[in-house]
Amino acid sequence: MIYWLSQHILDLARDQDWEGSVSWLRIFSYVTVRVAGAALTSFLLSLFFGNKIINWLREIAAEHYVSLASMGSKAKVGTPTMGGIMIVGFLDISVILWGVWNELLILTSLSMIVLAGLGFYDDYRKITSAQGEGIGEWLKIIVQFLLGAILVSYLYFDDDVSFLLKEIMLPFNKNPIMPVGVVSTIIGAAIVILAVFGSSNAVNLTDGLDGLAIGCTLICATVFLVITYVTGRVDFSEYLNLTYVAGACELTVFCSALCGACLGFLWFNCHPAQVFMGDTGSLAIGGTFGIMAVLVHQPFIIVIAGGVFVLEILSSAMQRYYFKVTRVLTGQGKRLFRMAPFHHHLQKLGWKETQVVTRLYIIAVIFALLALATLKIR
Amino acid sequence: MIYWLSQHILDLARDQDWEGSVSWLRIFSYVTVRVAGAALTSFLLSLFFGNKIINWLREIAAEHYVSLASMGSKAKVGTPTMGGIMIVGFLDISVILWGVWNELLILTSLSMIVLAGLGFYDDYRKITSAQGEGIGEWLKIIVQFLLGAILVSYLYFDDDVSFLLKEIMLPFNKNPIMPVGVVSTIIGAAIVILAVFGSSNAVNLTDGLDGLAIGCTLICATVFLVITYVTGRVDFSEYLNLTYVAGACELTVFCSALCGACLGFLWFNCHPAQVFMGDTGSLAIGGTFGIMAVLVHQPFIIVIAGGVFVLEILSSAMQRYYFKVTRVLTGQGKRLFRMAPFHHHLQKLGWKETQVVTRLYIIAVIFALLALATLKIR
Repeated sequence: MIYWLSQHILDLARDQDWEGSVSWLRIFSYVTVRVAGAALTSFLLSLFFGNKIINWLREIAAEHYVSLASMGSKAKVGTPTMGGIMIVGFLDISVILWGVWNELLILTSLSMIVLAGLGFYDDYRKITSAQGEGIGEWLKIIVQFLLGAILVSYLYFDDDVSFLLKEIMLPFNKNPIMPVGVVSTIIGAAIVILAVFGSSNAVNLTDGLDGLAIGCTLICATVFLVITYVTGRVDFSEYLNLTYVAGACELTVFCSALCGACLGFLWFNCHPAQVFMGDTGSLAIGGTFGIMAVLVHQPFIIVIAGGVFVLEILSSAMQRYYFKVTRVLTGQGKRLFRMAPFHHHLQKLGWKETQVVTRLYIIAVIFALLALATLKIR
Repeated sequence: MIYWLSQHILDLARDQDWEGSVSWLRIFSYVTVRVAGAALTSFLLSLFFGNKIINWLREIAAEHYVSLASMGSKAKVGTPTMGGIMIVGFLDISVILWGVWNELLILTSLSMIVLAGLGFYDDYRKITSAQGEGIGEWLKIIVQFLLGAILVSYLYFDDDVSFLLKEIMLPFNKNPIMPVGVVSTIIGAAIVILAVFGSSNAVNLTDGLDGLAIGCTLICATVFLVITYVTGRVDFSEYLNLTYVAGACELTVFCSALCGACLGFLWFNCHPAQVFMGDTGSLAIGGTFGIMAVLVHQPFIIVIAGGVFVLEILSSAMQRYYFKVTRVLTGQGKRLFRMAPFHHHLQKLGWKETQVVTRLYIIAVIFALLALATLKIR
């Protein structure tokens, strides 16, 4: 909006005698300025309104606590959840202010809102239902798949971006794999849906310790900030031999707003946490990473950039299936990890919560550097 | 060393029939490869040998504990200090492996070792003396000033780098201030000494909570990684209108090794800490930042890049002098902060240790981004 306004004023001012006095508005046409503005806006909004929102969330939870307690339920009220609305809300305000709308940005923002809505509904159900149950697992899966399918069909029918479905980049590979024909389009579509579905659930699983998910999100968002920026610049993408995606720098503004929102949320979410992001935050953030990875032409980059998220979802899946397989084979289910997801396993090893979080941050940084290295090493 | 070896082998192989089989050694001539290698080396060394060193430090402390306890002293043994030798040691190994020696790198490395030695002597005295006292404050100040003076005289007499003393860059200013004559050289010299002295003590004061100093060091080192890299590249420094400093990219290798060592040390230093860096680490790290800032021509950048360190030293100084002034004026000393340095003030406000640390990290990131912005906004 700021870009649009500044351009509008500059247009009006052209050849007027007050042109000089508004010429500083030109700085808003620089992507770097808008990127910096976006991060600052979402960060400061989080800091200033964080406490108010947390108190409000606590009140909502407390109300239901009273009404549930009067029914004899053992619902617990502690740290409020649903803090994800802070992240998504301030991010959206910041993107509306600093972004220039194009289809990439709209796709990403809308998907985030849909997933945040799904997560919010889940969180809200958990608070208000007597049994503390959220929505069914199947409803979540269906919405996530639907979202992936909508994305796929958009990519398929839009000629400008349809190559994203056909030419998929592999990390460490110089040229995109270019499948031809129907089968390969189906493979492309499956990869896209999997990216959205997988990353959404991976972040969801990671959200279990104070500050863990938001810190790893910050690190991963920084990687995407760099990747979207180089993909959206003609000169850099050519130098690195990446397919140039026009308008990808608006995703950089989005990533930057996300980084700012992460820093702001971490302020309140760090140990001991005053608020949790809940499914509202984790589903939305995860899904957005998946979508952005597809939109910058590198669906597999999330596997590296979000290495910790992948560790978490893999450990969960392996635990589950190892148990099932061993139960079938030996009659008794065995476990691979002391507890899944991975961060609970580390806690069972005797690491303190803060140690687990900091060390997984360190691992996330290593994965992030590796992901950035894949841009160059091919 | 790896660079030298690889070049040597390539020279030997020239026009030999086995030239092709060693041509991959060429990658070691890229700065980026050596930067990545340096970070990885110091990080992995820290991870693998961290526990051994911590146990060794604990034994040293325990020995003295026994001998002191037998004398009836109330010396306490808990988390071992002097962990800074891990940081400095692994950093040096990594720099020896991946760096190409030039005067900038030698000046920085030697200064670090001198300050680490000073800090180690201080830490060791604290453990071994019955009263837990370190070396006198004056000895520290004298060594730090001497180091600054040596640096100044080196800059003064070496024609290649003497401009660093005469042309000093100010943040947000396009052109270096170019003082002429004796007085201004004295001002330049004073700024250089102050940079080394101030930053060394600032990091020292910051080292008081689990993970605080090392995390802020990591963030600040990342800023220096970028600044030294752009200053050491002809094209980037011209684009950003910075004075090109030949060989500054070897300082990038140094910063990278420092980042790796920080990540590795944070693994053990995160709350609840298994080891503290002690003066061994904090004096050495702080001094190096001061020296590097001078060598890349921007002594004032540390005030921004190390914003948290500055907050800490300013709060300490203000507390001290406010108390003295009010005591003279009103007869009773008053305090500005509940407790200095600043992180203790925050604790007194009711923040938990982990909250103080994470939030100061967040502030450090903001300062870091601001410092990087000064490169462009001038």
